Amino acid sequence: MSSNGYAAWMAQIQQRTELALERVLPPAQIAPQRLHAAMRYAVLGGGKRVRPLLVHAAGLISQAAPARLDVAACAVELIHGYSLVHDDLPCMDDDSLRRGKPTVHVEYDEATALLVGDALQSLAFQVLAGDLAGADAAAQVSMLHLLAQAAGSRGMAGGQALDLASVGQTLSPEDLEFMHVHKTGALIRASVLLGARCGEGVDAAALAHLDRYACAAGLLFQVVDDILDCSASTATLGKTAGKDQLHDKPTYVSLLGLARAREFAAELHARARESLAALGGRAERLADLTDFIARREF
Amino acid sequence: MSSNGYAAWMAQIQQRTELALERVLPPAQIAPQRLHAAMRYAVLGGGKRVRPLLVHAAGLISQAAPARLDVAACAVELIHGYSLVHDDLPCMDDDSLRRGKPTVHVEYDEATALLVGDALQSLAFQVLAGDLAGADAAAQVSMLHLLAQAAGSRGMAGGQALDLASVGQTLSPEDLEFMHVHKTGALIRASVLLGARCGEGVDAAALAHLDRYACAAGLLFQVVDDILDCSASTATLGKTAGKDQLHDKPTYVSLLGLARAREFAAELHARARESLAALGGRAERLADLTDFIARREF
Repeated sequence: MSSNGYAAWMAQIQQRTELALERVLPPAQIAPQRLHAAMRYAVLGGGKRVRPLLVHAAGLISQAAPARLDVAACAVELIHGYSLVHDDLPCMDDDSLRRGKPTVHVEYDEATALLVGDALQSLAFQVLAGDLAGADAAAQVSMLHLLAQAAGSRGMAGGQALDLASVGQTLSPEDLEFMHVHKTGALIRASVLLGARCGEGVDAAALAHLDRYACAAGLLFQVVDDILDCSASTATLGKTAGKDQLHDKPTYVSLLGLARAREFAAELHARARESLAALGGRAERLADLTDFIARREF
Repeated sequence: MSSNGYAAWMAQIQQRTELALERVLPPAQIAPQRLHAAMRYAVLGGGKRVRPLLVHAAGLISQAAPARLDVAACAVELIHGYSLVHDDLPCMDDDSLRRGKPTVHVEYDEATALLVGDALQSLAFQVLAGDLAGADAAAQVSMLHLLAQAAGSRGMAGGQALDLASVGQTLSPEDLEFMHVHKTGALIRASVLLGARCGEGVDAAALAHLDRYACAAGLLFQVVDDILDCSASTATLGKTAGKDQLHDKPTYVSLLGLARAREFAAELHARARESLAALGGRAERLADLTDFIARREF
């Protein structure tokens, strides 16, 4: 993986994403200061930045301007960041550790964490509706629509609702997949499609391959997450390990067992790579990133 | 007020807003059903729809297509609706009554209320990024930007943060105004400007008058709210009366006393009407609506 320069590319995208997020988040000196400080605490200096990496890797396929990809990358990462802050709240997963730090409601307070999430969501749309480095306005509107749909009740927020409702339940494989396609898959898919739409180099056929890829990659990400939750340590993850079992949440591991969950991850990995094969060399980074997602240990 | 048909116009806009919201909210039959049912519970069948009324009244000035105004009206009302659901949560105002019904976290549960608010915010942007009845895409992007800014940390959510921080404090008139300009004023202003931008009939000079109007009207709305909170009954308001005093929140009444707060409301009312005078007969409905806001008793 590192032999072809993937590690250096990943570090570079993570770094430029951090700088881009630094720029779009309001400074902590501006009122309301405490809210702005908490927003920066929630988003900066942590995370693997998988969604920004997907935006940029897909952007290589569409030959998009990096400055435009930074904007889309910030938008999806802000949505992701808001969802983590709200998920960690006492009325949801009630977690105190995230990215190796106290969660926002622990470091600040519950009301602030609620408003941090709310304001991060608004900021995501504000950023994507801002200067998109010369992008066509009609394309920008469709990107905004895509992100809103992915975040909403028939995307990520809806997946959270299904996740809550599933506590203590035994789900069928179909229901578990439906939940995960919403909870994690929707924003992963949006990241890939936004990256592709930032440029003009993707025709309808290539977009269809990318969409198939994104669906497999989104599910892969979640299956690996389920596996790590039960096999990795809290120190490695930077968040509480073993949470799913503790909260009696159905996962691919509880449904299939660890060995079969690993096989399923390998299947999804192969399926994702297969969709990329049709796109040729332009998809190299996206293929590397998929390997990274499949093999990640945190 | 009713002699010139204002009451009939208001009833008609409220009714078409209700129908438009009915259409854009996902049906309760679609998964996740409980979330969708709760979103509909939160938004439908209640509220004065002041923000949609402002959108439509400003739209009469810009000669905007009513179908386009419906879209903008839904977007601002969904943002308003999400903010009410989150404000009522135990970690915020902890209220159990809204629009004469149990609040969402009481009727459903806290986690659902959190997700309802989150999903309503996404839906607002999805709706405004959707079919805007033939609007120019560049105008649509700028409307999305305006709404996101009004909702975010330097708008409504930021105002909430200031409101929280002000509990038990004695604020200067400047700080109180700063808080209210954000908490209530930002979305009121966005409603007026979105209505104006839905059409083409408003030049830069008229837009400046409208902006001045919107700032005065936003503050007027909040001053009247402060007055009603301490002078009207829970039954009349459909929400808990006397909350501000109970929570030791600084208001225009606690700062100025009731008589002086009423005078200030009258001043703002006059200032708002003055800004409209420059716009001539096209602004008649907006002037009527301003009178309604100034004289409302609930």
